[in-house]
Amino acid sequence: VDVIPDSHRDLAEKGGVGFLTTLGPDGSPQTTAVGFFFDHDAFLVTVKSSRQKVANVGRRSDCTLFLVDPANPYHALEIRGRAELVPDDDYVLAAKVAEHNGATVEQVRALDGPGEHRLCIRIHPVKCNVEHIAS
Amino acid sequence: VDVIPDSHRDLAEKGGVGFLTTLGPDGSPQTTAVGFFFDHDAFLVTVKSSRQKVANVGRRSDCTLFLVDPANPYHALEIRGRAELVPDDDYVLAAKVAEHNGATVEQVRALDGPGEHRLCIRIHPVKCNVEHIAS
Repeated sequence: VDVIPDSHRDLAEKGGVGFLTTLGPDGSPQTTAVGFFFDHDAFLVTVKSSRQKVANVGRRSDCTLFLVDPANPYHALEIRGRAELVPDDDYVLAAKVAEHNGATVEQVRALDGPGEHRLCIRIHPVKCNVEHIAS
Repeated sequence: VDVIPDSHRDLAEKGGVGFLTTLGPDGSPQTTAVGFFFDHDAFLVTVKSSRQKVANVGRRSDCTLFLVDPANPYHALEIRGRAELVPDDDYVLAAKVAEHNGATVEQVRALDGPGEHRLCIRIHPVKCNVEHIAS
Protein backbone atom coordinates (compact mmCIF):
# COMPACT_ATOMS: atom_id res chain seq x y z
CA VAL A 1 0.00 0.00 0.00
CA ASP A 2 1.13 3.51 -0.80
CA VAL A 3 1.33 4.72 2.75
CA ILE A 4 4.47 2.69 3.50
CA PRO A 5 7.52 4.63 2.34
CA ASP A 6 9.97 2.70 0.15
CA SER A 7 12.74 3.58 2.59
CA HIS A 8 11.08 1.47 5.29
CA ARG A 9 9.37 -1.21 3.24
CA ASP A 10 12.06 -3.69 4.31
CA LEU A 11 10.70 -3.57 7.85
CA ALA A 12 7.25 -4.55 6.62
CA GLU A 13 8.41 -7.30 4.29
CA LYS A 14 10.98 -9.11 6.35
CA GLY A 15 8.55 -10.17 9.06
CA GLY A 16 9.83 -10.70 12.55
CA VAL A 17 8.44 -9.09 15.64
CA GLY A 18 6.30 -5.97 15.79
CA PHE A 19 4.72 -4.14 18.68
CA LEU A 20 0.96 -4.03 18.42
CA THR A 21 -1.02 -1.56 20.49
CA THR A 22 -4.74 -1.91 20.92
CA LEU A 23 -7.17 -0.13 23.22
CA GLY A 24 -8.44 -1.73 26.41
CA PRO A 25 -12.00 -1.52 27.75
CA ASP A 26 -11.33 1.89 29.29
CA GLY A 27 -9.63 3.21 26.16
CA SER A 28 -6.11 2.99 27.56
CA PRO A 29 -3.39 1.49 25.36
CA GLN A 30 -2.10 -2.08 25.64
CA THR A 31 1.02 -3.20 23.80
CA THR A 32 2.13 -6.73 22.96
CA ALA A 33 4.87 -8.21 20.82
CA VAL A 34 3.55 -10.10 17.80
CA GLY A 35 4.86 -11.96 14.81
CA PHE A 36 3.36 -10.67 11.57
CA PHE A 37 3.13 -11.15 7.81
CA PHE A 38 2.64 -8.31 5.35
CA ASP A 39 0.60 -9.40 2.34
CA HIS A 40 1.27 -6.13 0.48
CA ASP A 41 -2.11 -4.83 1.47
CA ALA A 42 -2.42 -5.44 5.20
CA PHE A 43 -0.47 -6.86 8.12
CA LEU A 44 -1.63 -10.23 9.39
CA VAL A 45 -1.28 -11.22 13.05
CA THR A 46 -2.48 -14.61 14.28
CA VAL A 47 -4.25 -14.82 17.64
CA LYS A 48 -6.28 -17.25 19.64
CA SER A 49 -9.79 -16.24 20.57
CA SER A 50 -9.13 -15.86 24.29
CA ARG A 51 -6.61 -13.04 23.87
CA GLN A 52 -7.35 -9.61 25.29
CA LYS A 53 -6.36 -8.00 21.99
CA VAL A 54 -9.17 -9.89 20.24
CA ALA A 55 -11.70 -8.31 22.58
CA ASN A 56 -9.94 -4.97 22.22
CA VAL A 57 -10.05 -4.74 18.43
CA GLY A 58 -13.57 -6.17 18.38
CA ARG A 59 -14.60 -3.21 20.48
CA ARG A 60 -12.51 -0.57 18.76
CA SER A 61 -10.42 -1.05 15.62
CA ASP A 62 -7.84 1.72 16.09
CA CYS A 63 -4.37 0.30 16.56
CA THR A 64 -0.71 0.85 15.86
CA LEU A 65 1.91 -1.62 14.73
CA PHE A 66 5.43 -0.43 15.42
CA LEU A 67 8.29 -2.01 13.48
CA VAL A 68 11.93 -1.51 14.27
CA ASP A 69 15.20 -2.94 13.01
CA PRO A 70 16.65 -4.75 16.07
CA ALA A 71 20.15 -3.84 14.85
CA ASN A 72 19.31 -0.16 14.40
CA PRO A 73 16.56 1.44 16.48
CA TYR A 74 16.79 4.56 14.31
CA HIS A 75 15.29 2.56 11.47
CA ALA A 76 11.69 2.26 12.55
CA LEU A 77 8.17 2.64 11.22
CA GLU A 78 4.89 3.38 12.96
CA ILE A 79 1.83 2.04 11.18
CA ARG A 80 -1.44 3.50 12.34
CA GLY A 81 -4.27 1.35 11.19
CA ARG A 82 -7.61 -0.23 11.60
CA ALA A 83 -7.83 -3.81 12.76
CA GLU A 84 -10.28 -6.27 11.31
CA LEU A 85 -10.95 -9.66 12.90
CA VAL A 86 -11.03 -12.51 10.40
CA PRO A 87 -11.96 -16.10 11.33
CA ASP A 88 -9.10 -18.51 10.70
CA ASP A 89 -10.58 -21.84 11.81
CA ASP A 90 -8.60 -23.71 9.16
CA TYR A 91 -5.29 -22.04 10.13
CA VAL A 92 -4.60 -20.85 6.58
CA LEU A 93 -3.63 -17.36 7.72
CA ALA A 94 -1.87 -18.66 10.82
CA ALA A 95 0.30 -20.77 8.52
CA LYS A 96 1.30 -17.69 6.51
CA VAL A 97 2.34 -15.79 9.61
CA ALA A 98 4.11 -18.78 11.16
CA GLU A 99 6.03 -19.80 8.05
CA HIS A 100 7.12 -16.24 7.37
CA ASN A 101 8.62 -16.18 10.85
CA GLY A 102 10.44 -19.51 10.89
CA ALA A 103 7.72 -21.40 12.75
CA THR A 104 5.17 -24.00 11.71
CA VAL A 105 1.40 -24.01 11.74
CA GLU A 106 1.61 -27.04 14.06
CA GLN A 107 3.35 -24.85 16.61
CA VAL A 108 0.54 -22.32 16.37
CA ARG A 109 -2.12 -25.00 16.60
CA ALA A 110 -0.53 -26.35 19.79
CA LEU A 111 -1.19 -22.99 21.49
CA ASP A 112 -4.95 -23.34 21.20
CA GLY A 113 -6.68 -25.03 24.10
CA PRO A 114 -10.14 -26.57 24.25
CA GLY A 115 -12.88 -24.09 23.47
CA GLU A 116 -10.55 -21.68 21.75
CA HIS A 117 -10.40 -20.93 18.07
CA ARG A 118 -7.97 -19.14 15.82
CA LEU A 119 -8.46 -15.67 14.41
CA CYS A 120 -6.42 -13.33 12.30
CA ILE A 121 -6.12 -9.64 13.03
CA ARG A 122 -5.80 -7.87 9.68
CA ILE A 123 -4.30 -4.44 10.17
CA HIS A 124 -5.15 -2.07 7.36
CA PRO A 125 -2.62 0.77 7.32
CA VAL A 126 -4.12 4.24 7.41
CA LYS A 127 -1.02 6.32 8.00
CA CYS A 128 2.65 5.52 8.42
CA ASN A 129 5.29 7.57 10.19
CA VAL A 130 9.00 7.17 9.84
CA GLU A 131 10.39 7.34 13.32
CA HIS A 132 13.37 9.07 14.79
CA ILE A 133 14.63 8.72 18.31
CA ALA A 134 15.44 12.40 18.64
CA SER A 135 12.84 14.10 20.76
CA VAL B 1 8.68 -0.01 42.12
CA ASP B 2 7.14 -3.34 43.01
CA VAL B 3 5.21 -3.80 39.81
CA ILE B 4 8.35 -4.52 37.78
CA PRO B 5 9.25 -8.20 38.11
CA ASP B 6 12.85 -8.95 39.04
CA SER B 7 13.14 -11.18 35.99
CA HIS B 8 12.71 -8.15 33.72
CA ARG B 9 14.25 -5.38 35.79
CA ASP B 10 17.33 -5.44 33.54
CA LEU B 11 15.22 -4.03 30.71
CA ALA B 12 14.20 -1.09 32.87
CA GLU B 13 17.63 -0.37 34.24
CA LYS B 14 19.84 -0.64 31.21
CA GLY B 15 18.18 2.20 29.34
CA GLY B 16 18.20 2.19 25.58
CA VAL B 17 15.15 2.54 23.41
CA GLY B 18 11.57 1.94 24.44
CA PHE B 19 8.32 2.23 22.55
CA LEU B 20 5.99 4.77 24.05
CA THR B 21 2.33 4.79 23.15
CA THR B 22 0.12 7.75 23.96
CA LEU B 23 -3.42 8.58 22.87
CA GLY B 24 -4.13 11.06 20.09
CA PRO B 25 -6.92 13.65 20.06
CA ASP B 26 -9.46 11.06 18.89
CA GLY B 27 -8.29 8.48 21.43
CA SER B 28 -6.41 6.34 18.93
CA PRO B 29 -2.93 5.10 19.86
CA GLN B 30 0.31 6.69 18.65
CA THR B 31 3.65 4.95 19.15
CA THR B 32 7.12 6.46 19.04
CA ALA B 33 10.59 5.22 19.91
CA VAL B 34 12.11 7.02 22.88
CA GLY B 35 15.24 6.93 24.97
CA PHE B 36 14.49 6.63 28.68
CA PHE B 37 15.94 6.57 32.16
CA PHE B 38 14.44 4.60 35.04
CA ASP B 39 14.96 6.36 38.36
CA HIS B 40 13.67 3.36 40.36
CA ASP B 41 10.32 5.02 40.76
CA ALA B 42 9.32 6.20 37.30
CA PHE B 43 10.55 6.21 33.72
CA LEU B 44 11.82 9.55 32.41
CA VAL B 45 11.52 10.51 28.76
CA THR B 46 12.77 13.87 27.51
CA VAL B 47 10.71 15.78 24.94
CA LYS B 48 10.51 19.20 23.40
CA SER B 49 7.32 21.13 23.86
CA SER B 50 6.23 20.95 20.22
CA ARG B 51 5.92 17.17 20.18
CA GLN B 52 2.55 15.56 19.60
CA LYS B 53 3.12 13.27 22.59
CA VAL B 54 3.28 16.29 24.89
CA ALA B 55 -0.19 17.34 23.79
CA ASN B 56 -1.36 13.74 24.01
CA VAL B 57 -0.33 13.11 27.61
CA GLY B 58 -1.47 16.58 28.61
CA ARG B 59 -4.91 15.56 27.45
CA ARG B 60 -4.91 12.03 28.75
CA SER B 61 -2.25 10.42 30.90
CA ASP B 62 -2.77 6.75 30.01
CA CYS B 63 0.24 5.33 28.22
CA THR B 64 2.33 2.24 27.70
CA LEU B 65 6.10 1.91 27.52
CA PHE B 66 7.20 -1.30 25.88
CA LEU B 67 10.73 -2.54 26.50
CA VAL B 68 12.37 -5.37 24.63
CA ASP B 69 15.82 -6.89 24.49
CA PRO B 70 17.00 -6.24 20.90
CA ALA B 71 18.91 -9.53 21.01
CA ASN B 72 15.92 -11.53 22.24
CA PRO B 73 12.39 -10.36 21.46
CA TYR B 74 11.05 -13.00 23.84
CA HIS B 75 12.48 -10.97 26.70
CA ALA B 76 10.11 -8.04 26.86
CA LEU B 77 8.11 -5.99 29.32
CA GLU B 78 4.98 -3.91 28.91
CA ILE B 79 4.64 -1.08 31.39
CA ARG B 80 1.18 0.41 31.63
CA GLY B 81 1.36 3.73 33.34
CA ARG B 82 0.26 7.26 33.83
CA ALA B 83 2.28 10.05 32.28
CA GLU B 84 3.01 13.27 34.10
CA LEU B 85 4.47 16.31 32.33
CA VAL B 86 7.28 17.95 34.27
CA PRO B 87 8.96 21.23 33.21
CA ASP B 88 12.64 20.75 32.48
CA ASP B 89 13.73 24.23 31.46
CA ASP B 90 17.15 23.73 32.99
CA TYR B 91 17.70 20.38 31.24
CA VAL B 92 18.46 18.54 34.48
CA LEU B 93 16.20 15.62 33.61
CA ALA B 94 17.19 15.72 29.94
CA ALA B 95 20.79 15.28 31.05
CA LYS B 96 19.89 12.17 33.05
CA VAL B 97 18.17 10.58 30.08
CA ALA B 98 20.88 11.60 27.61
CA GLU B 99 23.80 10.49 29.73
CA HIS B 100 22.18 7.16 30.51
CA ASN B 101 21.91 6.56 26.78
CA GLY B 102 25.38 7.55 25.66
CA ALA B 103 24.45 11.05 24.56
CA THR B 104 25.06 14.51 26.01
CA VAL B 105 22.70 17.21 27.21
CA GLU B 106 24.21 19.49 24.55
CA GLN B 107 22.90 17.12 21.90
CA VAL B 108 19.44 17.33 23.44
CA ARG B 109 19.63 21.11 23.71
CA ALA B 110 20.51 21.36 20.01
CA LEU B 111 17.16 19.77 19.13
CA ASP B 112 15.17 22.64 20.60
CA GLY B 113 14.31 25.46 18.24
CA PRO B 114 13.24 29.01 19.04
CA GLY B 115 10.04 29.14 21.04
CA GLU B 116 10.34 25.57 22.21
CA HIS B 117 11.12 24.42 25.68
CA ARG B 118 12.09 21.14 27.24
CA LEU B 119 9.80 18.88 29.23
CA CYS B 120 10.09 15.51 30.87
CA ILE B 121 7.40 12.87 30.61
CA ARG B 122 7.46 10.93 33.88
CA ILE B 123 5.80 7.57 33.42
CA HIS B 124 4.51 6.15 36.68
CA PRO B 125 4.06 2.38 36.31
CA VAL B 126 0.63 1.09 37.23
CA LYS B 127 0.88 -2.46 35.94
CA CYS B 128 3.57 -4.47 34.20
CA ASN B 129 3.15 -7.48 31.97
CA VAL B 130 5.87 -9.88 30.97
CA GLU B 131 5.46 -10.49 27.29
CA HIS B 132 5.58 -13.59 25.18
CA ILE B 133 5.42 -13.73 21.42
CA ALA B 134 3.19 -16.78 21.39
CA SER B 135 -0.35 -15.78 20.60
